Amino acid sequence: MYTLHDNTESGNAYKVRLLLSQLGLPYRTIQYGVTDGSTRTPEFLANINPNGRIPVVEFPDGRCLAESNAILYYFAQDTDFFPSDRWEQAEVMRWMFFEQYSHEPFVAVAKFILTMLPADSPRRAEIPTLHEKGYAALKIMEDRLRDHDFLVGDSYSIADIALFAYTHVAEMGAFDLSRYPAIRAWIGRIKGTPGYIPMYPED
Amino acid sequence: MYTLHDNTESGNAYKVRLLLSQLGLPYRTIQYGVTDGSTRTPEFLANINPNGRIPVVEFPDGRCLAESNAILYYFAQDTDFFPSDRWEQAEVMRWMFFEQYSHEPFVAVAKFILTMLPADSPRRAEIPTLHEKGYAALKIMEDRLRDHDFLVGDSYSIADIALFAYTHVAEMGAFDLSRYPAIRAWIGRIKGTPGYIPMYPED
Repeated sequence: MYTLHDNTESGNAYKVRLLLSQLGLPYRTIQYGVTDGSTRTPEFLANINPNGRIPVVEFPDGRCLAESNAILYYFAQDTDFFPSDRWEQAEVMRWMFFEQYSHEPFVAVAKFILTMLPADSPRRAEIPTLHEKGYAALKIMEDRLRDHDFLVGDSYSIADIALFAYTHVAEMGAFDLSRYPAIRAWIGRIKGTPGYIPMYPED
Repeated sequence: MYTLHDNTESGNAYKVRLLLSQLGLPYRTIQYGVTDGSTRTPEFLANINPNGRIPVVEFPDGRCLAESNAILYYFAQDTDFFPSDRWEQAEVMRWMFFEQYSHEPFVAVAKFILTMLPADSPRRAEIPTLHEKGYAALKIMEDRLRDHDFLVGDSYSIADIALFAYTHVAEMGAFDLSRYPAIRAWIGRIKGTPGYIPMYPED
């Protein structure tokens, strides 16, 4: 069985939980805190991920794979979650690198600051810049989704999973999703896919 | 023929020039400025990349592919620059996502601030933080390369190209590479690979 080194507040970890659920692959989780340094211990750095981050999937033979989108890529190979067409494969990659460079550092970080740090954190000063850059990323998604059901081709793929994770909880970072009807319809479509599980189990 | 929407100062664009050279694929380039807004014109956003960034490869049929590491992935398929083993493929992805999230935003941005902005730019205040995070990324590379010739498996791959681009010019961002003998040896190995071209043509 796979072991997911996990955190319930991490959209990056949720990506992996969602795909494993939709693939019907059983796994257990080990939970880590976000701000308690538990992913930066010498043991974690030596044995799980030298970059000190979750998610990491530990395989039954002990090998560990880090980086959420690399994990999605690994498990999606030869499944319906990754296209067979070479151009569409590259487009999946384009959206996943876009997510990590131009979306997550703003949309996820705003959520982190507003939900995980004290109300008087000086990092609240970052919110206007995070919103400016996060809205720019959301606009690019909205423009694509206005006349397409999914981000690549005609099918739900790991590109959608990668972008869905933090987009569907963007309001926790005080982003206003009412401006983006196509994104909201896409969120609804993803929630209806087989094997869907919510990010927060109580939802 | 392919058209690379390019900038000579961009390590992300250089990744593409290097791989296309090593694959022997002819291409022409269109140059853009880094700070003149030329990648944010309405025409560029509509026709080349809605995210307003280079590099972008334009195919003979007019389709455009953005995100440097997605471009590397596309062209490396079924070549010696991408492994055939599924685990090693995932490891290539892990390093490429690491590069875009944990390396480039620090190592590349320090170079940008110190070489492209005025000496009195207030952004120089970012340098200590960029160095702290950039050195953390370089240490992870050094630890891997201390007993391996390349980042994944035994072979030069697009993971090496992705990390080489900004690492080998890190000193332009005032990073001290003398601390990292394994990285320096790896840089030397890459410079000896067939079809290698330097980032700056005059070098």
